[in-house]
Amino acid sequence: MVSKLIEKIQKTKAPICVGLDPMLGYIPDAVKEKAFGEYGQTLEGAAQAVWQFNRAIIDATADLIPAVKPQIAMYEQFGIEGLKVYEKTVRYCQEKGLIVIGDVKRGDIGSTSAAYAAGHIGTVQVGDAVCAGFGTDYITVNPYLGTDGVKPFVDVCNQCDRGIFVLVKTSNPSSGEFQDRVIDGRPLYELVAEKVVEWGEASMDGAYSNVGAVVGATYPEMSRVLRRLMPRTYFLVPGYGAQGGTAEDLRWCFNEDGLGAIVNSSRGIIAAYKKEAYAKFGAEHFAEASRQATLDMIADIGRVL
Amino acid sequence: MVSKLIEKIQKTKAPICVGLDPMLGYIPDAVKEKAFGEYGQTLEGAAQAVWQFNRAIIDATADLIPAVKPQIAMYEQFGIEGLKVYEKTVRYCQEKGLIVIGDVKRGDIGSTSAAYAAGHIGTVQVGDAVCAGFGTDYITVNPYLGTDGVKPFVDVCNQCDRGIFVLVKTSNPSSGEFQDRVIDGRPLYELVAEKVVEWGEASMDGAYSNVGAVVGATYPEMSRVLRRLMPRTYFLVPGYGAQGGTAEDLRWCFNEDGLGAIVNSSRGIIAAYKKEAYAKFGAEHFAEASRQATLDMIADIGRVL
Repeated sequence: MVSKLIEKIQKTKAPICVGLDPMLGYIPDAVKEKAFGEYGQTLEGAAQAVWQFNRAIIDATADLIPAVKPQIAMYEQFGIEGLKVYEKTVRYCQEKGLIVIGDVKRGDIGSTSAAYAAGHIGTVQVGDAVCAGFGTDYITVNPYLGTDGVKPFVDVCNQCDRGIFVLVKTSNPSSGEFQDRVIDGRPLYELVAEKVVEWGEASMDGAYSNVGAVVGATYPEMSRVLRRLMPRTYFLVPGYGAQGGTAEDLRWCFNEDGLGAIVNSSRGIIAAYKKEAYAKFGAEHFAEASRQATLDMIADIGRVL
Repeated sequence: MVSKLIEKIQKTKAPICVGLDPMLGYIPDAVKEKAFGEYGQTLEGAAQAVWQFNRAIIDATADLIPAVKPQIAMYEQFGIEGLKVYEKTVRYCQEKGLIVIGDVKRGDIGSTSAAYAAGHIGTVQVGDAVCAGFGTDYITVNPYLGTDGVKPFVDVCNQCDRGIFVLVKTSNPSSGEFQDRVIDGRPLYELVAEKVVEWGEASMDGAYSNVGAVVGATYPEMSRVLRRLMPRTYFLVPGYGAQGGTAEDLRWCFNEDGLGAIVNSSRGIIAAYKKEAYAKFGAEHFAEASRQATLDMIADIGRVL
C-alpha cells in the first residue's frame, strides 16, 4: 500500500492529504438549508449536508492530491446516518483514484483489534462468503494497549495490502502529558516509535513499511528525532495550518529522498472560504476556495522540500 | 449516572455486566443458518444473526444484571449493517432497564473527542433541533492524547448525566509494554490514574464520580494500588473468566462499602453453551446456558465480597 501512496504523491507532486472533517459549522448555510429542506433537521439531514459538502470539495481537489483523510468522529456524531455518509465518502474518493486514510484511532485487546481491522481495512468471513465493511486503504491506530493490540492490524495490512499509521506523537496541546514522560532517560513517544519500527519490519513494501506513524507538525524538534529513529516509516503529519504547524516545521518529517511524510490539512482546506485569504470566493464557491487553498498548501510545502 | 448504576447493582446484588461481544463463531449454527437464509451470506445476514443471538441472551439475563457492555468492534466489523444492530442492541437493552456501557475506546484531539462524545453519550445540534446518535449511558475512553482529548467526554458527562470509563490498566497480556513503564519511580498507569481522579472531581454523583476507570482483573496487585489511588472512581473490570481473572483477583477492585467496581464477562457468558460446564443445555438452549453462567458468576463474585 505505501508504494501506491508514494506513486500517487510523486505523480501529483503533493505530499498532502485533505482532511474531510466536516463539522456542521464549516458547511455553508445554503448547503445545510437545502439538505434540511429535503431531509429535515435530523441526523439524516445533517449527514446529507455533509455529503453534499464533501462531494463538492472532493470534485474540486481530487486531481491535485494523492489522498484524503476523513475523520470518522465527524460522521459518527450523526450516528448511523453519519456513518453511511462516511462509507459513501470512502467509496467516492476511491472511485476518483484517491487513497483513503480513515482516521479512526482504533485499538483494543487482540481479538477486538482483529475485528476493527477486519471491518476497516480487511474482510470478514460470513458463511462461505468474504465481505468487506468500510474498505478504507489506511487507518490510524492507538498503541496504548501494546503489541497484542496493534499486531492484528499489522496482520491485516500484510494479508490485504493495506496500511496503518500508529499514533506516536500527536499534534494536540496536551499530547505531552503522557507521550513525553521520560522512561529510562527517553520520552514514551520514542519507545512507541521503536515498537512501530519493530511492528513494521515484516510489512515492507519497497523502501518504506505499510506500518506508518502519526507525528504531529506542532512539535518539530521531536519529529527530527523521530525521523532518525524511524527511517523507513511513513509519517502522517497532522497539525499543519489551523493547528499552528508551518511548512518550516515540516522539514524534519521528510527524508533526504523528499519522501517519508504526508501532511494533512483539514479546516485550512475544507473551510478555506471562511478565511480572509479566500473570502473573495464567497460561501457559494466554497469548493473553489478549497481548491485554491490546496494549491497554496502544495506550494508552501514545496518551498521547504 | 454512577448513582443509577449503583442503584441497579444494589437492586440486583450483581456487580457485573454482560459483554455483548458476539463473534460469529459464538453464535449457534441454527441461528446463523436462519439469518443467512433470510438475508444471505452478507453483512446484513451476519448482523441479523448477531441481533437474534443478542436478543435471546438479553431476554434470558436482563432481570439478573444491572448493565451490559457491547463491544462496538464486533458490530463495526460488519460495517453499517453491524452498527445498525449495535444501535438496536443499545436501545433494546435500555428498554429492558439496563445501563449500557458502549465499549468504544474512543479518544482523539479536543474537537474530535467532542464529536465522539456527542455521537455516543451526548447530542448534536442540527439547525434548531437537538438529535441523539447512539445514546449509550457510558462509554470507554482512551487517554493516550492527554487531558484535552479526554475533557470533551467529561464535559458531556456533566451536561447529559452520562459516564465514561478511562483506560488505566487494561487486561491484555501486553498491556504492560507502555502502561507499566516507570516514570519518576512510578508506572505510567498510576499517572493516568491520578489524571482520572483529577478529571472526575467535577463530576461527582453521590459518593462516586461519573468518570470511571478500566482496570483489568488480570493484574490484581495493580488493582490494589489503583483502588487506593482512586477511592471515588468506579472501576470497569474486564478480564474475568475467559481471560484468566478469578474472583479472588477481583477482591481489591472493590471498596469496603462493597461498591466501586463492575466486572465484565463476555465469552464466559454469551458463549457459555460451548463450555463443558454448560454443555448439557445444548446449542439450542444457548440463552439458558448464558443465564446459568450469569447466576454462577454472581455467586462466584459474591463469595469474595
